[in-house]
Amino acid sequence: MEGISNEACSLAGHWGLGKLIAFYDDNHISIDGDTEIAFTENVDTRFEGLGWHVIWVKNGNTGYDEIRAAIKEAKSVKDKPTLIKVTTTIGYGSPNKANSYSVHGSALGAKEVDATRKNLGWPFEPFHVPEDVKKYWHWSRHVPDGAALEAEWNAKFAEYEKKYKEEAAEFKSISSGELPAGWEKALPTYTPESPADATRNLSQQCLNALAKVLPGFLGGSADLASSNMTLLKMYGDFQKATPEERNLRFGVREHGMGAICNGIALHSPGIIPYCATFFVFTDYMRAAMRISALCEAGVIYVMTHDSIGLGEDGPTHQPIEHLASFRAMPNILMLRPADGNETAGSYKVAVDNRKRPSVLALSRQKLPNLPGTSIEGVEKGGYTISDNSSGNKPDVIVIGTGSELEIAAKAADELRKEGKAVRVVSFVCWELFEEQSDAYKESVLPAAVSARVSIEAGSTFGWAKIVGSGGKSIGIDKFGASAPAGKIYKEYGITAEAVIAAAKSLC
Amino acid sequence: MEGISNEACSLAGHWGLGKLIAFYDDNHISIDGDTEIAFTENVDTRFEGLGWHVIWVKNGNTGYDEIRAAIKEAKSVKDKPTLIKVTTTIGYGSPNKANSYSVHGSALGAKEVDATRKNLGWPFEPFHVPEDVKKYWHWSRHVPDGAALEAEWNAKFAEYEKKYKEEAAEFKSISSGELPAGWEKALPTYTPESPADATRNLSQQCLNALAKVLPGFLGGSADLASSNMTLLKMYGDFQKATPEERNLRFGVREHGMGAICNGIALHSPGIIPYCATFFVFTDYMRAAMRISALCEAGVIYVMTHDSIGLGEDGPTHQPIEHLASFRAMPNILMLRPADGNETAGSYKVAVDNRKRPSVLALSRQKLPNLPGTSIEGVEKGGYTISDNSSGNKPDVIVIGTGSELEIAAKAADELRKEGKAVRVVSFVCWELFEEQSDAYKESVLPAAVSARVSIEAGSTFGWAKIVGSGGKSIGIDKFGASAPAGKIYKEYGITAEAVIAAAKSLC
Repeated sequence: MEGISNEACSLAGHWGLGKLIAFYDDNHISIDGDTEIAFTENVDTRFEGLGWHVIWVKNGNTGYDEIRAAIKEAKSVKDKPTLIKVTTTIGYGSPNKANSYSVHGSALGAKEVDATRKNLGWPFEPFHVPEDVKKYWHWSRHVPDGAALEAEWNAKFAEYEKKYKEEAAEFKSISSGELPAGWEKALPTYTPESPADATRNLSQQCLNALAKVLPGFLGGSADLASSNMTLLKMYGDFQKATPEERNLRFGVREHGMGAICNGIALHSPGIIPYCATFFVFTDYMRAAMRISALCEAGVIYVMTHDSIGLGEDGPTHQPIEHLASFRAMPNILMLRPADGNETAGSYKVAVDNRKRPSVLALSRQKLPNLPGTSIEGVEKGGYTISDNSSGNKPDVIVIGTGSELEIAAKAADELRKEGKAVRVVSFVCWELFEEQSDAYKESVLPAAVSARVSIEAGSTFGWAKIVGSGGKSIGIDKFGASAPAGKIYKEYGITAEAVIAAAKSLC
Repeated sequence: MEGISNEACSLAGHWGLGKLIAFYDDNHISIDGDTEIAFTENVDTRFEGLGWHVIWVKNGNTGYDEIRAAIKEAKSVKDKPTLIKVTTTIGYGSPNKANSYSVHGSALGAKEVDATRKNLGWPFEPFHVPEDVKKYWHWSRHVPDGAALEAEWNAKFAEYEKKYKEEAAEFKSISSGELPAGWEKALPTYTPESPADATRNLSQQCLNALAKVLPGFLGGSADLASSNMTLLKMYGDFQKATPEERNLRFGVREHGMGAICNGIALHSPGIIPYCATFFVFTDYMRAAMRISALCEAGVIYVMTHDSIGLGEDGPTHQPIEHLASFRAMPNILMLRPADGNETAGSYKVAVDNRKRPSVLALSRQKLPNLPGTSIEGVEKGGYTISDNSSGNKPDVIVIGTGSELEIAAKAADELRKEGKAVRVVSFVCWELFEEQSDAYKESVLPAAVSARVSIEAGSTFGWAKIVGSGGKSIGIDKFGASAPAGKIYKEYGITAEAVIAAAKSLC
């Protein structure tokens, strides 16, 4: 019933995943009762429409031969995934609760367990596996079978390794997750003289640089590749006939995309998947992103068009609360780089974090490369990019992220002209900053300096912790609007003038 | 491609919505190019599986008679929704850009617009509608047609009103959104002597009370009715054969459910839809909830199992960051009632707010009815439920929400025994508190009192704004775990002892 299953199954059909065999437990019971009350579609027909081979096992309770035959048939179909619809009775064997929703979410209870044992003719104690059963499965069959299969595989791989040294090393790297030494040197660096560019474009430079040095680096977009700038130029499309390619075409299926990337990430530690859409559309795949965080799957979420700065598409496309909503989520890194070096730094962090997903919020609009930004700075989460104070006692600290770091820097320049001692802090990743030592945190945000101003083109929710009770946060606590980026920034008060006025009111 | 469309279309088929006619613009182009790269399913077969009638118009560019015939056929099918698949050429008429993705997201440009006009033989100025066309559509046809239809309808309704006075008044109430006077008196009230109960059960008392007095009140759950406690006991199920009933059975389709409720809410101002699932599964329908907020649709989201207090289901089912994530979203009320009176107050607020959705976070576990809680208090968002200080100068303010208000109250009792002047504040709805006058806010959270402790079984993200730089927040900034509610609360430090220790460290 869940939409995500249709997204994923549509792609499985498109890709012709012949090795995929899905069992559908067709027991006609859901938590609220018979599925008849909410689900009367013809599942077979739907899956045929999705390009699947469909088999129906009518007696899933005791039809072992039917099930074996279905699996055999499914394996023989090489060009399509197979759905084996297995009609069963939920709670089969329970004399009083079988075929009812009461066995879906609750335990049978001791009395009904007893009755079920009697009904099924199972005389043994709970958790007892009779010796002859155990012996057959454990010693007579699966242990020797498994050992033989492993030996066969090892011999095959040893032979392969002799013939194809380079490919075997690559395979080992992907299987073990040990990344090639010095991979991070492939990341581009920038100077203030480098041309201004959108961080989505700088992101593409990083993606392409990483794909050259990381054999398991691959990904794609939910039908926004040309907007998210996620194509790997040296590779073609991953398709049914070209599974060796690395550009995944997910279609307009964000939730399925996130879930598929979780599967890819968890398959082998050296496979590093990225996926992309507009930042606001994380709402469509938030459940999959939370699973990344919970399962420690290091998926890289490339989220472009990260603020009202995207312009004309208007409020349906403009993220407001999204930075806050991921900062609140456990075990996920929310990164919002300001320029080229910070984008490279964000990818350094994202690739390094194999047990934690990363979300990169990237701009559609051009941004200058700022003096003071660095990959090392990003790794600390928050750091000073410029400062004309001494003794760790600036008059005011101006804090920005992403596209607003430029505005913070401009405001600081003006304030300095008026004689103020101003520190500018890039707060690119709150989670990483939180992990730094107290001494480091104090060196960036000294407790004694309560005059702090933050600016970010998004919800101010959460910023009070950073700027403190004595500080001010400039942001957007309402929905966006449709207008060119420059105009809407002015209209919404995301300006250097606003920072200057706030700073002056505090120092 | 989006999963939500399959969810909604599966329900439309199940409900047999014969009046629904959907046009599918089958132009084979998406933003990334030909749909061939990601979407090769057989849409006709899929929709037939979903229980739809499917018609294919092969020439959607100029086949006007074909389209007319398809509409006629669709109207004649009364027991199923109809999909009219219309094969078209995107950008039809543009000599250089037709049938390419470049006409999907970008303007044609002046030159290509000119070429298209010439190609289609349209000699008029931009935005000019020739007089004969205008005359035919405006005066000769649609204005008199519409006037006749309106007159006919008005006459029919006048007749109906004479015969069925009560039903006509109900219809008017639903159409106008004018709720029956005194509806809020139907809400139950409680005293500290009322038995302890889970707020999900108290919620069901409110839902049933409201359905009796509000003719347009209806809703349901995504296959969790017996857990969310959302059944209206005096009504049956809304089904194909029983459209007069009010219990909607959404199946496991959260995203579709939210979107359907948006449609219901926007249909008539007096129809008030609610929908329900576990709070953590808002992740599945967040995009629909944001649309509620953006479209000013007053949907009521009944979200039970609102913390680690749900117990054994474990971290996949335990919301952590969800309260914060909705507090950050514009134009949505995040309510977390602590007991019976606050649950009733939350429904008062939710029904009153017809231009703003409400999310009610409700407990699975039993909670006592606390002295001092009230419907009026909830309407202010934050309010004092007990206080032994004088002159608006407590030694410490303890702030809680929902199931943790009880813990805050217990801690206060202990602290008072030790001679402290303690105020306990229920912070049931941040958005409503924010809208109160400065004087009111100062009366609840005086600026001079920096000793503040908050407790909430969820992310502490955002609480710094409420407790200030001098305060402390007790919460959960990691994922949950599987254990009985009492045990996991202790393990995670969500206890009166923790509140007492934090309070003592501050005053």
